Amino acid sequence: MCCLFSGMISPGFVSGSFFINGVDKKREACEIGLNIGIVGATGAVGRKVLEVLSERNLNVDKVRCFASSRTAGEQLEWKDKTITVELLTENKMKEEYDYLLFSAGGDISKEYAPIAKEAGNIVIDNSSYWRMHEEIPLVVPEVNGHILRGYKGIIANPNCSTIQMVMALAPLHRVYQMKRIVVSTYQAVSGSGNKAILELEKQNDDPKYPPSVYPKPIAANCLPHIDVFYENGFTKEELKMVNETQKIFNDETIQVNATAVRVPVFNGHSESVTVTFNSTPRLLEVRELLGSGSGITLLDDPGQLKYPTPLEIQGSDSTFVGRIRKDLFDPCTLSMWIVADNLRKGAATNAVQIIEKMEEMKN
Amino acid sequence: MCCLFSGMISPGFVSGSFFINGVDKKREACEIGLNIGIVGATGAVGRKVLEVLSERNLNVDKVRCFASSRTAGEQLEWKDKTITVELLTENKMKEEYDYLLFSAGGDISKEYAPIAKEAGNIVIDNSSYWRMHEEIPLVVPEVNGHILRGYKGIIANPNCSTIQMVMALAPLHRVYQMKRIVVSTYQAVSGSGNKAILELEKQNDDPKYPPSVYPKPIAANCLPHIDVFYENGFTKEELKMVNETQKIFNDETIQVNATAVRVPVFNGHSESVTVTFNSTPRLLEVRELLGSGSGITLLDDPGQLKYPTPLEIQGSDSTFVGRIRKDLFDPCTLSMWIVADNLRKGAATNAVQIIEKMEEMKN
Repeated sequence: MCCLFSGMISPGFVSGSFFINGVDKKREACEIGLNIGIVGATGAVGRKVLEVLSERNLNVDKVRCFASSRTAGEQLEWKDKTITVELLTENKMKEEYDYLLFSAGGDISKEYAPIAKEAGNIVIDNSSYWRMHEEIPLVVPEVNGHILRGYKGIIANPNCSTIQMVMALAPLHRVYQMKRIVVSTYQAVSGSGNKAILELEKQNDDPKYPPSVYPKPIAANCLPHIDVFYENGFTKEELKMVNETQKIFNDETIQVNATAVRVPVFNGHSESVTVTFNSTPRLLEVRELLGSGSGITLLDDPGQLKYPTPLEIQGSDSTFVGRIRKDLFDPCTLSMWIVADNLRKGAATNAVQIIEKMEEMKN
Repeated sequence: MCCLFSGMISPGFVSGSFFINGVDKKREACEIGLNIGIVGATGAVGRKVLEVLSERNLNVDKVRCFASSRTAGEQLEWKDKTITVELLTENKMKEEYDYLLFSAGGDISKEYAPIAKEAGNIVIDNSSYWRMHEEIPLVVPEVNGHILRGYKGIIANPNCSTIQMVMALAPLHRVYQMKRIVVSTYQAVSGSGNKAILELEKQNDDPKYPPSVYPKPIAANCLPHIDVFYENGFTKEELKMVNETQKIFNDETIQVNATAVRVPVFNGHSESVTVTFNSTPRLLEVRELLGSGSGITLLDDPGQLKYPTPLEIQGSDSTFVGRIRKDLFDPCTLSMWIVADNLRKGAATNAVQIIEKMEEMKN
C-alpha cells in the first residue's frame, strides 16, 4: 500500500505480498515507507505509539491519527510534523493503511476493527476485546511472532502484565518447560490512562482528593483490584494473565495463579514471579538464557544494587529481569522480579514490534 | 513487682508468681497496675507502643521511656502524663519492671536485653536479634502464646511481615495443615522508621530529593530489597519470613517462598499469599474459620469493594483478610490478600498483646 498510495519518498525497503479486499497484489520493491493509522491517538497508549514510531528503526512514511469527538481536532507532534487528530468514522477505517493500531478501548475495537479488516487492513489491537477469540493471533513478537507469517486481519496485543511475564519466561520455557506460575503484580497507574496519572498526582498532594478512576484512593495505598471481579474470586486482569499466557505459549497445561495489584507508581509494572518447571533449571544457564534473550535485559547483581525498579527502567523498550534465585525447598522452582515500561513494551512498543516482525518476515 | 515498688494504686487485678534474680516470690493479689519500660521510645515503634498501651485494656501504672543520648530528654505524652525520656544505661535495665519492651534495633537488644533478663525482668524484644535463638520464644499471642506459660526472660516479637501472615494462616493450618506458602509483600515505609516516612513525603513533593534511608528513590517506585542480600539471592527480610514462620508453627516442613518489596505507602503492609495445604480447604469453612479467628477481620466481598487496603485499615490492631479464592488448577491451594498496620499488629500491638497474654495466663 505504501507504494501505491503514498506521495512521499523516504529511504528504506519494503516488499512482500498483501491483500486488498481479498485481491492478492504483489507489492514491488520500493523505497517508500509505511502508511499507519492510530486509533485512540490522544490516549496514554496512543501518544506512546506515536513516540515509539518516531524512535524505532521502522520506515514510516505517513501517520494518521483518529479519536472520538472528545479529542478530534487536537494537534499531535510526530517527528517534525504536526498531525491533526481526525474524527474516527467507519469510512476512514475503510481507507487503505499498511497497519492500523487500535488503543481506544474494547468497544471501539469491537466495532471498528472488523470494518478495517474487511477493507483489507491489518489491525493491531491493544484492547482486550479480540485477544481470546480463537482465530485471532495474540502476539509477543519475540515469543510467538512466527505465527504471523502470511497473516492478514486483526492481531491482538496481549495485556501489559502478560507481555512482560511471557517475555522473561519464554527463553526458560523453551529449555525447562513451565508447569506452574505464581505471580503477584505491582502495576502502575499509567495502565489506566492519563486520568489515572492525574489522580495519583492530585492525591499525592492532597490525600482527600476524591478517587474517580479507581474505587479507592491510590496514593499511599495498594489496590488488589484491577478490572472487574468474577465469581471465582479472580479479577479479569488476573484471568487475562492465565488465559493469555496459555494462548501465547499454545499450551493449556501451564498453570497460572495471579494476583494483580495497583500500586502508587506512575509508570512501569513490576512482577514477583515464582515459576515451577518440569525439569531442574541451573542458575548459570538461566542467567545465560535471559542475558542473551532478545528484548530482555538481565539486571541481577543485588549486592551491587543491580535489580530493576520501575522508576529506573522508564522509557526503555526492554523487559528487565533481576532477583533470580532458586526456591529453598523445590529445585524445579525459580523466583524472579520482572519490570517493564507498561506503556512501551507492555503496549505501544509491542504493537510497533508486531509491525517490525511482519515487515521482517516479508523479506 | 507492681505490688512492691509502685506507689500508685489503680484499679485492676494482677496475680501470679515471678522471679527476681532467680528467687521465686509469690506476688499477692493487689490492685495496682504494671510497671513498664520502653527502650527506644522515641522511634516509630516505641511511640506506637506508648499509644497502644494507652488504648488497650491493660492495667498499667507506670511507664518509663529510654533512648540513646540523641533523643534522651525529649518529652512524650502518655494518657494525661508527660514522660521525660531517660538515657538508656545498664543500671537502669537492672531496675525492676514487670515488662521491658525493646524497639531500638538489634545492637541495643543484643547488649541490654541480657542485662535486663539477668536482673529478673521480662523483655519483649521487637528487633530481629533474638528471634532465631533456640531458647528464645518467638510469639504471636493468638498463634502460639501458650508457650509463654510460666516463662521469664527474653521473648522475641516476630517480624512485621511474618506476624500478619501467620495470623491469617494459623486458623487454616490447624484444620488443613500447610505445606507451602508463596508470598509477595507490599511493605510500607513506616517499617523503616520515622526517617523513611519523611523521605517518602519529601520525594512525593520533589522526585529529585535524594534517597538516604533507601538505596534508591521510594516515591513512585517499588524496591524488591528489604534488609541485606544473602548469597542464595534472598534478602534477610525474606528469610525471616521462612524461618520465623517455621519456628512459630514449630514445623520445619512448612515451605515458604517470599519476595519482600517496599512500596510507596506510608503505613500498612499488604501481602499476596498463595498457600498449599495437605488437605483440601472448603471455601465456606475457610471463611468461617477466618471470620471467627481471634484478631482477624474478614473483609471479603470484592463485588461490594470489600477487600482490605493499607490506607483503610490504619490504626486497627486486627489482621485483615480478603480476596480469598481457590486456585484454578490445584484444589489444595488458596490465594488471599492480607493487610495489617505494621506498626501496630506488626510490632507494638503484638508486643503489648504478649503482656496481656502473660497476665491472662497468670490468672
